[in-house]
Amino acid sequence: MKLSPSLPIEKENTSLDPTDWASARCMAHQMLDSSLDYIQYVRDRPVWRAVPYDVRAVIEDEPIPKQGQPLATVCHDVINYVMPYARGNAHPRFWGWVSGEGTLGGIIGDMVSATLNVNACASTHSAAFVERTIIDWMRNLFNFPEESTGGLLVSGTSIATVISIATARQRVLVNVREDGLVNGQQLVAYVSTESHGCVVKAMELLGLGSKAVHLVPVDENFSIKIAELKTAIKDDRDKGLVPFCIVGNAGTVNTGAFDDLLELSKIARAENLWFHVDGAFGSFVILDPQRSHLVTGIDQADSLAFDFHKWLHCPYDVGCVLVRDSSLLHSTFSTNQGCLERTERGCSLDDRWFYHLGPELSRSFRALKVWFTLKEHGTVKLGQKIAENCEQAQYLVSLLEKYKNIIRIVYPVSLNIVNFRFEPEEFDKDDHELLESFNDELVVDIQMSGIALPSSSRIQNRRHIRIAIVSHRSTHEDFDIFMETLMKLYRSRVDAVVMARNGYD
Amino acid sequence: MKLSPSLPIEKENTSLDPTDWASARCMAHQMLDSSLDYIQYVRDRPVWRAVPYDVRAVIEDEPIPKQGQPLATVCHDVINYVMPYARGNAHPRFWGWVSGEGTLGGIIGDMVSATLNVNACASTHSAAFVERTIIDWMRNLFNFPEESTGGLLVSGTSIATVISIATARQRVLVNVREDGLVNGQQLVAYVSTESHGCVVKAMELLGLGSKAVHLVPVDENFSIKIAELKTAIKDDRDKGLVPFCIVGNAGTVNTGAFDDLLELSKIARAENLWFHVDGAFGSFVILDPQRSHLVTGIDQADSLAFDFHKWLHCPYDVGCVLVRDSSLLHSTFSTNQGCLERTERGCSLDDRWFYHLGPELSRSFRALKVWFTLKEHGTVKLGQKIAENCEQAQYLVSLLEKYKNIIRIVYPVSLNIVNFRFEPEEFDKDDHELLESFNDELVVDIQMSGIALPSSSRIQNRRHIRIAIVSHRSTHEDFDIFMETLMKLYRSRVDAVVMARNGYD
Repeated sequence: MKLSPSLPIEKENTSLDPTDWASARCMAHQMLDSSLDYIQYVRDRPVWRAVPYDVRAVIEDEPIPKQGQPLATVCHDVINYVMPYARGNAHPRFWGWVSGEGTLGGIIGDMVSATLNVNACASTHSAAFVERTIIDWMRNLFNFPEESTGGLLVSGTSIATVISIATARQRVLVNVREDGLVNGQQLVAYVSTESHGCVVKAMELLGLGSKAVHLVPVDENFSIKIAELKTAIKDDRDKGLVPFCIVGNAGTVNTGAFDDLLELSKIARAENLWFHVDGAFGSFVILDPQRSHLVTGIDQADSLAFDFHKWLHCPYDVGCVLVRDSSLLHSTFSTNQGCLERTERGCSLDDRWFYHLGPELSRSFRALKVWFTLKEHGTVKLGQKIAENCEQAQYLVSLLEKYKNIIRIVYPVSLNIVNFRFEPEEFDKDDHELLESFNDELVVDIQMSGIALPSSSRIQNRRHIRIAIVSHRSTHEDFDIFMETLMKLYRSRVDAVVMARNGYD
Repeated sequence: MKLSPSLPIEKENTSLDPTDWASARCMAHQMLDSSLDYIQYVRDRPVWRAVPYDVRAVIEDEPIPKQGQPLATVCHDVINYVMPYARGNAHPRFWGWVSGEGTLGGIIGDMVSATLNVNACASTHSAAFVERTIIDWMRNLFNFPEESTGGLLVSGTSIATVISIATARQRVLVNVREDGLVNGQQLVAYVSTESHGCVVKAMELLGLGSKAVHLVPVDENFSIKIAELKTAIKDDRDKGLVPFCIVGNAGTVNTGAFDDLLELSKIARAENLWFHVDGAFGSFVILDPQRSHLVTGIDQADSLAFDFHKWLHCPYDVGCVLVRDSSLLHSTFSTNQGCLERTERGCSLDDRWFYHLGPELSRSFRALKVWFTLKEHGTVKLGQKIAENCEQAQYLVSLLEKYKNIIRIVYPVSLNIVNFRFEPEEFDKDDHELLESFNDELVVDIQMSGIALPSSSRIQNRRHIRIAIVSHRSTHEDFDIFMETLMKLYRSRVDAVVMARNGYD
């Protein structure tokens, strides 16, 4: 089927570009203004509000569009149906999970990145140099040996963990890429009971299995018990298993606890194990002179995973993996593909392309927003913001401690996370179920109020209200506002429970 | 260490937001104009140009910034050092590898996405409904059973393939998440020799090993040989191996070939194997009525992987995985994490959150740019653009065929990809090495010219110049311009080789 060059379709050829650039530009600028309004006036909005059923129906009931709609119509839908009902983490009183807020520079970075539309998998262009510069900066910051191909930007710590553990697996099973794991040795990794689920998930994905994760208990500071770790390694070796990796925490998700990274690194060296550090948000305390001691030993890690979209406020998603020995990262992921060979000149002259260092071949130019953020704000101010969040956590503790008779706080509060629960005097202290559901429902009450957004946690098998402060916009006043709302909602929920009980008596 | 609420640091508290919003807004609008200029006037620029050494030095030599720089300074650096030296795939004569061009709507989508800064891992907000709508639309388009949690947006087909093969693995090894692969059965997957390297890479990552990939030869159309596939499965079973998955191609990367998906699906059903389709770009021929027959049988796939950033022109990165049986996808990836429990009300009331369907916990709001693109342009026009690219490939063939004495084209040209090589009459036909390097260098000459950007391929163990047309901006005139440049560069390189040879004679 060959078509002649003079077919009518060619005459009607129109690209997907606007036919009227002037009005399209005008529309794009309006959308930028709406975006800037969103962050400039974020305080005037509820932190979160439910998507109304009619809005949800508009989104869900539209069939796949056959004919295009005018740019203005699509922009209208984005402004009316999408923007008002976002997750809320740009708001200064969003303290759920661990989420950064984003910045104006991050918006510009992603806007330019979408324009250039780079696939940062390979090839010689500015995105490659910017990304390698970020890797250099991070290796410098965490005092890793200099090596700009010893790391990669990824969507987040989950993928960074997969890459790290895969590299650890490669080190001990050098033929694993060809042979796979069947008939291989039973490897074992060590993590504390407070570790994030992404480690187990990575072990599952890599075919090592969750049973290959040896959970080690924590002490009263929620840090891994060193003596128990040593015993676990010895016992496993005695059983014929093959220990291969220790995972240390730089800021756990529940309480912001730090393992003793230096001690873990020594054990890893002595036992010839890989030492991986999960520093999803906590690793950046290295920017805060008062708290950088918490990550002493992080420079000894074989691999380090962390996110820029948490405590560095780059827009989602952008995380990072650093691997001490870059050649090992390369031997874990490099491939030869006929269509992607290196040349001596032209646009393919680099080697150690990014797709040789991880599982992704399609990769957006995530590095630009990181570059922008670090250049615009600098490490000193970014570190100060981290320090402020930690001080705000102490301020919140001071407010909560005024209600010692009804609020039980989880100590220590060593970083930016505060966990607490209500134990109302009106309730039977042994009514576990009532207390659990009371605190559960109170979290939801606060979320529904639109005033603040905490999430919840399970600590020592008890439900807690959890405030994780990862915000450059939060002020002390925000915590005062939160306390007022919290106590009001608490009071009204207690009254409701008591009234219901009395009604049944 | 507790700090009183009245510490001086609080008084100086400033967020990372602009202190002068008016001038920051002005700067942001200037950056938007620079971005719009970039795509409106993309034709006036070279497709690609090397990053000059002094620019590279500016990027690479800057140490990690301690102090922040004014917004205008950072924007200046982006405009001067980053934007002029991108990969080039927004240009209508970028035909390397398989890369979409992006659109204005895609820029707006990513700009708003960075503003809302959603982590689309869980929680009830507009991003969740938009993403599920995209999954619905895609399942509808490919005639999969209705199920909005039966898929996920990902960075691209590489990760989509990892998810697909992991789900196939889960189906046959139901305890693999806990037990891992050690002491398990030796699984085998079947792919054609023309398959993309991401399949082997996924098999390696998942611990199945590259030796578990059985490569099946292709016929003269570069489609998998069905009879040889059947024999391979039987032979492997006889050896005690466990076949578990067949991978079919909907558009190979080298030549755009399609396997007989319907036949493959029947074999998979008969043999009780998983049927995965790699439709990275080719799956979207379903939008072109003249070519949709090429993917007959795609609706029978157990999993399907494809990209929106290729033939649907969404900005990098956004791909998709669909899994027929959503419960199997869920059982492959779902986890219980204490901090992410579902509630009956509030912002966590959904179940089957996205992080239960894949390896990522941090996920940007990729769905917005897809939603925007489909709404703005509609499937009819997007399908027409695909048809035009295929017709343009035939037009290019007609131009190349004028030089039959020196240009050898790889037939059939069945889609949007044209492979050819020069075999100059002045050269010894048996001088393999000279012919290889000649074509290699010619590709680079074209790249360096800035006029067009082809990549190269290795087909039947010969180096070819490869033109993959995935552009909504290309016109017939672009191919005329390309041919003129190509023949000029060809002529001058032949002359150089002949002169050098004569000089040495």
